[in-house]
Amino acid sequence: MQIDLNCDMGESFGRWELGEDEAVLAVVTSANIASGFHAGDPLVIQRTVELAARRQVAIGAHPSYPDLQGFGRREMNLSFDEVEAMILYQVSALAGFCRAEGVELVHVKPHGALYNQAAKDLHLAQAIARGVKRFSPQLILVGLAGSALIEAGLSNNLRVAREGFPDRAYEPDGSLRPRRLPGAVLESTIDVCAQAVRLASQGIHVTRVNGESTIPVDTLCIHGDHPGAALRAAAVRSALEEKGIEVGSLIG
Amino acid sequence: MQIDLNCDMGESFGRWELGEDEAVLAVVTSANIASGFHAGDPLVIQRTVELAARRQVAIGAHPSYPDLQGFGRREMNLSFDEVEAMILYQVSALAGFCRAEGVELVHVKPHGALYNQAAKDLHLAQAIARGVKRFSPQLILVGLAGSALIEAGLSNNLRVAREGFPDRAYEPDGSLRPRRLPGAVLESTIDVCAQAVRLASQGIHVTRVNGESTIPVDTLCIHGDHPGAALRAAAVRSALEEKGIEVGSLIG
Amino acid sequence: MQIDLNCDMGESFGRWELGEDEAVLAVVTSANIASGFHAGDPLVIQRTVELAARRQVAIGAHPSYPDLQGFGRREMNLSFDEVEAMILYQVSALAGFCRAEGVELVHVKPHGALYNQAAKDLHLAQAIARGVKRFSPQLILVGLAGSALIEAGLSNNLRVAREGFPDRAYEPDGSLRPRRLPGAVLESTIDVCAQAVRLASQGIHVTRVNGESTIPVDTLCIHGDHPGAALRAAAVRSALEEKGIEVGSLIG
Amino acid sequence: MQIDLNCDMGESFGRWELGEDEAVLAVVTSANIASGFHAGDPLVIQRTVELAARRQVAIGAHPSYPDLQGFGRREMNLSFDEVEAMILYQVSALAGFCRAEGVELVHVKPHGALYNQAAKDLHLAQAIARGVKRFSPQLILVGLAGSALIEAGLSNNLRVAREGFPDRAYEPDGSLRPRRLPGAVLESTIDVCAQAVRLASQGIHVTRVNGESTIPVDTLCIHGDHPGAALRAAAVRSALEEKGIEVGSLIG
Repeated sequence: MQIDLNCDMGESFGRWELGEDEAVLAVVTSANIASGFHAGDPLVIQRTVELAARRQVAIGAHPSYPDLQGFGRREMNLSFDEVEAMILYQVSALAGFCRAEGVELVHVKPHGALYNQAAKDLHLAQAIARGVKRFSPQLILVGLAGSALIEAGLSNNLRVAREGFPDRAYEPDGSLRPRRLPGAVLESTIDVCAQAVRLASQGIHVTRVNGESTIPVDTLCIHGDHPGAALRAAAVRSALEEKGIEVGSLIG
Repeated sequence: MQIDLNCDMGESFGRWELGEDEAVLAVVTSANIASGFHAGDPLVIQRTVELAARRQVAIGAHPSYPDLQGFGRREMNLSFDEVEAMILYQVSALAGFCRAEGVELVHVKPHGALYNQAAKDLHLAQAIARGVKRFSPQLILVGLAGSALIEAGLSNNLRVAREGFPDRAYEPDGSLRPRRLPGAVLESTIDVCAQAVRLASQGIHVTRVNGESTIPVDTLCIHGDHPGAALRAAAVRSALEEKGIEVGSLIG
Repeated sequence: MQIDLNCDMGESFGRWELGEDEAVLAVVTSANIASGFHAGDPLVIQRTVELAARRQVAIGAHPSYPDLQGFGRREMNLSFDEVEAMILYQVSALAGFCRAEGVELVHVKPHGALYNQAAKDLHLAQAIARGVKRFSPQLILVGLAGSALIEAGLSNNLRVAREGFPDRAYEPDGSLRPRRLPGAVLESTIDVCAQAVRLASQGIHVTRVNGESTIPVDTLCIHGDHPGAALRAAAVRSALEEKGIEVGSLIG
Repeated sequence: MQIDLNCDMGESFGRWELGEDEAVLAVVTSANIASGFHAGDPLVIQRTVELAARRQVAIGAHPSYPDLQGFGRREMNLSFDEVEAMILYQVSALAGFCRAEGVELVHVKPHGALYNQAAKDLHLAQAIARGVKRFSPQLILVGLAGSALIEAGLSNNLRVAREGFPDRAYEPDGSLRPRRLPGAVLESTIDVCAQAVRLASQGIHVTRVNGESTIPVDTLCIHGDHPGAALRAAAVRSALEEKGIEVGSLIG
């Protein structure tokens, strides 16, 4: 049994710093690096790629809608052609920094509102998958387990990684409990660790009127932008390894 | 005898259109495509790369300071590390669109204020050359003939292309006559054509107290953002070919 | 009988030019000036306010979502607090240029996707109205006739101006015929002039199961960003005046 | 004897937070609020204006070059017309939020590279002063004591406030010791407090070949963007008051 731990990073911009990238990189196995549209200017990208490469953490692009002010978290309504080109632009930029460091770009995980909209909108998800594939059919597309983005990746013959969230509650139908509802976010490290083990070992349980099923999970999302992020990431990793779950990257 | 004709293009942005790219592409042999920092959103880049590829025109990146409002024409004061990273970012993005179209990225020509400052500031020019080389040592760096940018390219073991301006007057010392002086810009197509032939066949004459010399010219800049640009480009090409000067790209 | 003719303008940005502002200003009575978020840098705003002031055309702010690349035409999902603050920011900026020219800011007309979303979403429309009112309760809020934006203006005790579109077909229920349907845009100048006269003199006819009604129209939108815009604007004005409809600004 | 204490604030942007504005506002008498071009989106501006108004701290605009990525700290080369319009735009925006809160905009202090360049370049300084004056001749222009910006303010009949830096060493000629030289920045709170008292009570000593003179100081700059900023500000204020120097705003 193996699981990947991924974390968004490189989300500083110019004078503004965010995240505990160095500390988190000591724990995770995949780094989703902001690609300049919601965060991450060229210098930030360079430093983050260097840090991740030194730690031998697998590097992915973390493309977003073009929205610095909203940190890529605001839904936008772009044409599918534009989404495809926007993905290709950001993935290409990230890949160039990897090339300069002598490492491979391994995966692509859309950010924020783009990720959330693509979980439900198959047309949008297809545009993302096409953009990824145009750069390279070898890239792994990371999306919410059970979502339209995973479906779009598969139908474009891309490798996919199904993502689970150790710090979010799941509904009986396998969807994430909406943040506005009570209990949506698991607060205690113990609960988060327990859910991480459950997701890695059993996947997501889905109960529907016509029966039960399970969605496997390939990678767990570690949130890196709050205080104590690195400590919690370490706790999650430790809990997984104690249960005999190997923590390794998607290409490990 | 052979000369390259290059033109900046892809300088539209969103709703705003600029240039006669399609018509100019029928004439020139190299296209410097705006890379998103002074002009050129991802969709514009994609369309321009497609057009150039279809015409078999050699494609180059046209990186700039991050300044949409000033169209990259305003001097800025960035750290050299930032310039290097900014070049790598933009070159990588352009290269990704080329890769998606199945063509090679051939050259890099800095835009506007960056080009002008790098003609004189060797430290800045070195930062640009390092950024280009980090992406690929095979890329050709295009700079003003006789400038610090050419020097920086050579000292970084990059191939360089020395650029001449058919529509600009040259001073006896081989520098461009400053635009604020009378006669700096050649207005008539006849004069422009004659100077194109002269630059291609003889290079730039330099008269100094200690003697005369010549700076060879590898590529001629065609300005594409004014009305009638494509017609004048055709006149220049025709004049060159009539004199037996072959027009071909830098890798032709 | 009187009607206002309004036109969006000042939609250039840096190197990129758009519209026939000078020619259109000779015809219209209200100018909606782009306020920097979808178009209009400070120099463009200054020139446009000067031009409008010289022609004694009533000046309005034309605030937008922050989206230069999409020209404010892409739906975005901002919090209502953010919309209110964004409106106040842009209206204040425009008002400052008016103050410097010694003229009044008369009205506010939201741009693009913000206008369209606010026509249907009363919560969004209320946020816009609050932003306008916070700057000054004397400002006139311009919105689609019969829309939520007009309702929000009225419930905030703002003066409102109900806008009609001479070049767009209306559905029997008084709504604009969606652009994707055939016949949505009136192409001929004759049809546009006839509809302008109809809207100014009779308003918009509304047929519902429970009877017929009419929505009065206070201002007609002249599109200024296509070739021939000024000529068509002149034709519309001429047609109105021939029918005895006085063309004058909202404060005329 | 009276002195103003001013601090830059409102320098967060979207997701990125910076500064200890609330704590600093309890100590200073003037707030220079980022106006959107180097930091400060509309929501941040609104919150900061509200906080300052509640504390009855005098509010100023803090306009900058348009450069989020460089935080307004990179020199740029804009035309003087553009600088004037850019100042008017930002000052107007800030003034609108003040108006909405029912308070006055008191002063304008340029930010970062614009401040530094305007200290030496009288033409640039004049453009800034014209922009300020176009909004209102009642505004106070804050600039480096002894600089071209103060000169430009006076020659435009603006009230000016001459700024001193408690945490920076001064050269014998009255200029700030360049940051790259040793001892340029005073590190200890004791030294900073002593210099604050000296600047407030005696001004800046200037020794030239032709004699000695003194430049009076009207306002002291408190840096707010490093940890412990509020504590140090309190120490400075306390030191001043102990020496019988009244701390009050420029309009106090």
